Amino acid sequence: MTLPRAIGLATAFFVLPSFSFASDGSSNAASPDTVFIFNSLLFLIGGFLVFWMAAGFAMLEAGLVRSKNVAMQLTKNMSLFAVAATLYYLFGYNLMYPLGQWFIDGFVSAAVGLAILEPVAVTRELADDYSYAATGSDFFFQLMFCATTASIVSGALAERIKLWPFLAFTVVLTGLIYPLQASWKWGGGFLDQAGFLDFAGSTVVHSVGGWAALTGALILGPRIGKYNGDKVMELPWSDLSLAALGTFILWLGWFGFNGASQLAMGTVGDIADISRIFANTNAAAAGGVLSTLILSQILHDKPSLMVVLNGALGGLVAITAEPLYPSLGMATLIGGLGGIIVVFVTIGLDKLKIDDVVGAIPVHLACGVWGTLAVVFTNPDASILAQLYGIGAIGLFTALASALVWWLLSLTMGLRVGIETEIAGLDIAELSSEAFPEHLRQVGDSPKQAPETLAEA
Amino acid sequence: MTLPRAIGLATAFFVLPSFSFASDGSSNAASPDTVFIFNSLLFLIGGFLVFWMAAGFAMLEAGLVRSKNVAMQLTKNMSLFAVAATLYYLFGYNLMYPLGQWFIDGFVSAAVGLAILEPVAVTRELADDYSYAATGSDFFFQLMFCATTASIVSGALAERIKLWPFLAFTVVLTGLIYPLQASWKWGGGFLDQAGFLDFAGSTVVHSVGGWAALTGALILGPRIGKYNGDKVMELPWSDLSLAALGTFILWLGWFGFNGASQLAMGTVGDIADISRIFANTNAAAAGGVLSTLILSQILHDKPSLMVVLNGALGGLVAITAEPLYPSLGMATLIGGLGGIIVVFVTIGLDKLKIDDVVGAIPVHLACGVWGTLAVVFTNPDASILAQLYGIGAIGLFTALASALVWWLLSLTMGLRVGIETEIAGLDIAELSSEAFPEHLRQVGDSPKQAPETLAEA
Amino acid sequence: MTLPRAIGLATAFFVLPSFSFASDGSSNAASPDTVFIFNSLLFLIGGFLVFWMAAGFAMLEAGLVRSKNVAMQLTKNMSLFAVAATLYYLFGYNLMYPLGQWFIDGFVSAAVGLAILEPVAVTRELADDYSYAATGSDFFFQLMFCATTASIVSGALAERIKLWPFLAFTVVLTGLIYPLQASWKWGGGFLDQAGFLDFAGSTVVHSVGGWAALTGALILGPRIGKYNGDKVMELPWSDLSLAALGTFILWLGWFGFNGASQLAMGTVGDIADISRIFANTNAAAAGGVLSTLILSQILHDKPSLMVVLNGALGGLVAITAEPLYPSLGMATLIGGLGGIIVVFVTIGLDKLKIDDVVGAIPVHLACGVWGTLAVVFTNPDASILAQLYGIGAIGLFTALASALVWWLLSLTMGLRVGIETEIAGLDIAELSSEAFPEHLRQVGDSPKQAPETLAEA
Repeated sequence: MTLPRAIGLATAFFVLPSFSFASDGSSNAASPDTVFIFNSLLFLIGGFLVFWMAAGFAMLEAGLVRSKNVAMQLTKNMSLFAVAATLYYLFGYNLMYPLGQWFIDGFVSAAVGLAILEPVAVTRELADDYSYAATGSDFFFQLMFCATTASIVSGALAERIKLWPFLAFTVVLTGLIYPLQASWKWGGGFLDQAGFLDFAGSTVVHSVGGWAALTGALILGPRIGKYNGDKVMELPWSDLSLAALGTFILWLGWFGFNGASQLAMGTVGDIADISRIFANTNAAAAGGVLSTLILSQILHDKPSLMVVLNGALGGLVAITAEPLYPSLGMATLIGGLGGIIVVFVTIGLDKLKIDDVVGAIPVHLACGVWGTLAVVFTNPDASILAQLYGIGAIGLFTALASALVWWLLSLTMGLRVGIETEIAGLDIAELSSEAFPEHLRQVGDSPKQAPETLAEA
Repeated sequence: MTLPRAIGLATAFFVLPSFSFASDGSSNAASPDTVFIFNSLLFLIGGFLVFWMAAGFAMLEAGLVRSKNVAMQLTKNMSLFAVAATLYYLFGYNLMYPLGQWFIDGFVSAAVGLAILEPVAVTRELADDYSYAATGSDFFFQLMFCATTASIVSGALAERIKLWPFLAFTVVLTGLIYPLQASWKWGGGFLDQAGFLDFAGSTVVHSVGGWAALTGALILGPRIGKYNGDKVMELPWSDLSLAALGTFILWLGWFGFNGASQLAMGTVGDIADISRIFANTNAAAAGGVLSTLILSQILHDKPSLMVVLNGALGGLVAITAEPLYPSLGMATLIGGLGGIIVVFVTIGLDKLKIDDVVGAIPVHLACGVWGTLAVVFTNPDASILAQLYGIGAIGLFTALASALVWWLLSLTMGLRVGIETEIAGLDIAELSSEAFPEHLRQVGDSPKQAPETLAEA
Repeated sequence: MTLPRAIGLATAFFVLPSFSFASDGSSNAASPDTVFIFNSLLFLIGGFLVFWMAAGFAMLEAGLVRSKNVAMQLTKNMSLFAVAATLYYLFGYNLMYPLGQWFIDGFVSAAVGLAILEPVAVTRELADDYSYAATGSDFFFQLMFCATTASIVSGALAERIKLWPFLAFTVVLTGLIYPLQASWKWGGGFLDQAGFLDFAGSTVVHSVGGWAALTGALILGPRIGKYNGDKVMELPWSDLSLAALGTFILWLGWFGFNGASQLAMGTVGDIADISRIFANTNAAAAGGVLSTLILSQILHDKPSLMVVLNGALGGLVAITAEPLYPSLGMATLIGGLGGIIVVFVTIGLDKLKIDDVVGAIPVHLACGVWGTLAVVFTNPDASILAQLYGIGAIGLFTALASALVWWLLSLTMGLRVGIETEIAGLDIAELSSEAFPEHLRQVGDSPKQAPETLAEA
């Protein structure tokens, strides 16, 4: 997205009034100011919708952890967003764009620095990129993607990671890892030049969060009581209505996530493309719901709401790499396959005793890879090699960098809470807040029990 | 809404630059591309707001069923949306518009088929209807109305209907019943030609959902323990904070529901009309809150939150047929009367032993009829006969078609869960998910008890 | 905001087509109709976001009261919004603008009257202020600010104030107190003329709500069991996931609150300013989260989620008086200091035995004052004296008027529920709705207990 900044300032000034709307040579077009306003408005609306996804992750994750860890999960989600907002301002935004040049030109073309907004009451002559959008709107929108990446991590590592080391990891993820790899594609870097396609970030956002979560889950180990020999125990959760609310919020936010990634709204073609994207994004989520509903009925004879929720999210992640080119039917299929992938990857992770509390790895990593590969079925410009190159390069870098940071943190701060804390719950032991102080609840790490046995306890 | 598609393509091309913004003969007007962008943006914003109503219904209904049925209610709500999205794509969208011709011309003018979006990077010359809006935005917005209709049904039949027959009904409702009757009005069909007015769907959406719910509730029968001889028992609910959240969500989404039904935003008159609609929609909801607050105080000496929530919704349904013409005061009154209607229809349904778990029939059917009739008080073009004609034709068709489908489903799949399942709760028996596995909760169908007796149980 | 109404109607008509976009003398500018549409759209989007804040307050407050008072708190929040909507229509809107003239001209320049929207299908020639925005959009947006003020009050007085006297106070607050003082600044009144700056209402909205809450809390007295001699007891709350949801909702809504207070979106400068405001508003909230996270770690050795949530809100209130001029770093600092102020003012109130259930006074009053003073650090037009004048004049008026109304209500209707009602909970005693009838919950007013002792009770 730096490229549009380089052009446009020279055009459209001092043209004759009667040919004034010359941006596409026709007087039917929107005026240049109108285009600038539409583009910026797209980022603002898209940005507040993606902000809302932070609430979605918080609700989803709070609903899927046990009651004794709900307040901690909420604290982590709100704190990681604040860390992301601050670090992306301090380093990320300027790292994401100019550092991409390093990989093109062989040297660092710009110093990393604070994000600077356009001055108050800027004029078109002084706007940073008059042919694109207001810098503040671009910063606001891009920041939300960075924060989304961090939100993905918190769910997988829930119920056992300490707050402060988790936030320390978030500092590195949002200030360095995310913006650096994002620059390779969205900053015009080597992956962009190699033809790697990732429209709204199946790889750049979702699989990056997924790799960070996977490495963290491997280093942390599973929760006490999750794996009993070869048996996988189902630990309870606090509230599926919160989890469903979180999923609906994420679904809503995704319209902004994918739609505003069109990056322009000032022409007939752009608004029609955004409309396609909205419709396709919705279709893919619906596909994920339907496939998981049917699959969980077939596999277990009863559907599972939790699987259906992750099916919706898997469908959404899968369409994110290419929400524009598919037909509605193709989008439904891509999302539906995403749901199926979620189900089997979840089973596989449990076989490997990798404990992912909310299913972040199947949803964001596995469906992120699937969605990135699926681009080749619909976008005529896509090459399977370039897609594999992007998935591999970003995956390798993120996994290695994340593992290094997790390892350094485990050596210094320590990553995991003590056994007693884990059993008592993080809300009492690590926070001074319980989520539901008035409600009787099951204390401890024992697997889900029938209500009758609870009553006797 | 098909009518605008027939016109406009011929206009506005190849005009002289100096008279380029000729859409209303004035150079102050927005350019044709700008109008197209505004109209499409209206549908996208309205569409995501109406999508959000799906979450509102889910939260409202999850809060009003007993804890043992919460996960099932959430599953139904998310699944019905996915079914609606897919069926409206497969059949509904093209059935809704061209089939309307059948009733005008005496023959089917177009084959039913998949919804097709405009090609990627469409130009104004190739846009399906350059004078209207992007097809994808129209599809996205119209789809949400179809899904809303289905959401209305799930609440009334909660806690006793099986998942799969319910979804089978949803297939017919969203693929056939809704789009067919909607074509009579919004597809330019015989009701539209007869002068029937229903701006955003008090009848076309809300009463259709209400009729489907009513026929379903009649065929299903009441929940175990709801009616004890002539006594109406108050069965408990899980969580009024969820129900209130759902109501706030629906209220918010309704701005998109009514506002974007203006179908255009590119002129001074259109944006001022949308603004009127936003203000009136809000006023009607407020009227419903105030009338039910006061009425429940008068009738029962204490207000009831549940009644107030349904009062807000009743007010919103009542203003939906004509949110544009009323003054703010008139909108408040129309909504306020809606709230009063909710209260008395709820009492009447209980007299008839029709068990509607969330009050969908009083809110969506009764207030839908009231709102459709109330059009004659404010819109000078309205005729009471045409309004009655529309209410009757759509009501008769929907009730008969729904009853037929419910009956066929009861013969084949069976509609109602077994007694033991109903007592144990659908979450354990029909799903593999409990909503709150850690919380002690009242198992069974006994009426609401004081906390002390619960503790002894 | 009345001033723009006086101008603009005379301009931009009947200009030559070739100079048609003359609003800033350049053919690149948006056409006058487009500007009008953008401005109105800004109010509609901003307005629905601020409406959403009503849900945020409801969730925040419902989560922070005890379970026995949740349904009442939800009832109060929904009812106060309906009262605000109706009173602002009946009196507030026209009081807010013309009465401001009184202080300029020495006499009441316009009779108070009903808010009237522009006629259906208005033309630019007939629009109330063609150079500004549709009246309906302005009314819709302004109404939401009035309702926000009332929402602030309900949290502080929770768990002990009767419903009807609270709503009676809301009638006076939203029909008289809020619009009158708002006219002094936003109606072009004496504070505006004195150079007092308050961009989106740190003082005009938030501190006004805070003063009304403070006077009410003083007259009501603390909840039973809150202060035991000199000991401050921590009374439990129902659900921190609701409180966190409410905070995320408020954060989201604040983008509309501050962003749409730019009041115009039709030029490059305006959209760039709105973009700055979105980014700064987000930065300030993040600052509030980080400062309270760190401070509660330092003070209590463990972070507190409740403090972090109020830190986010304190940061948001603090940036509201001037969200445009600060840099991102400065906005983060202003918000961060807001969080610190929340912590210490909360401690101070408890020292004074002023019981504010949700922390509305530290967040909205204290940070409202701080934010209004902080304007002088970034806005070159600000004077510390004018800021103090505005804070003092509005504070004095609101505190005196509120105290008078509270006192009259306590004499006539009585403000506080009886002791038995307070112990049993308002949901059973004053409403016919319990929020969670199925859940075992702690009845009574005893301070938070460990789960074990609850089980024995």
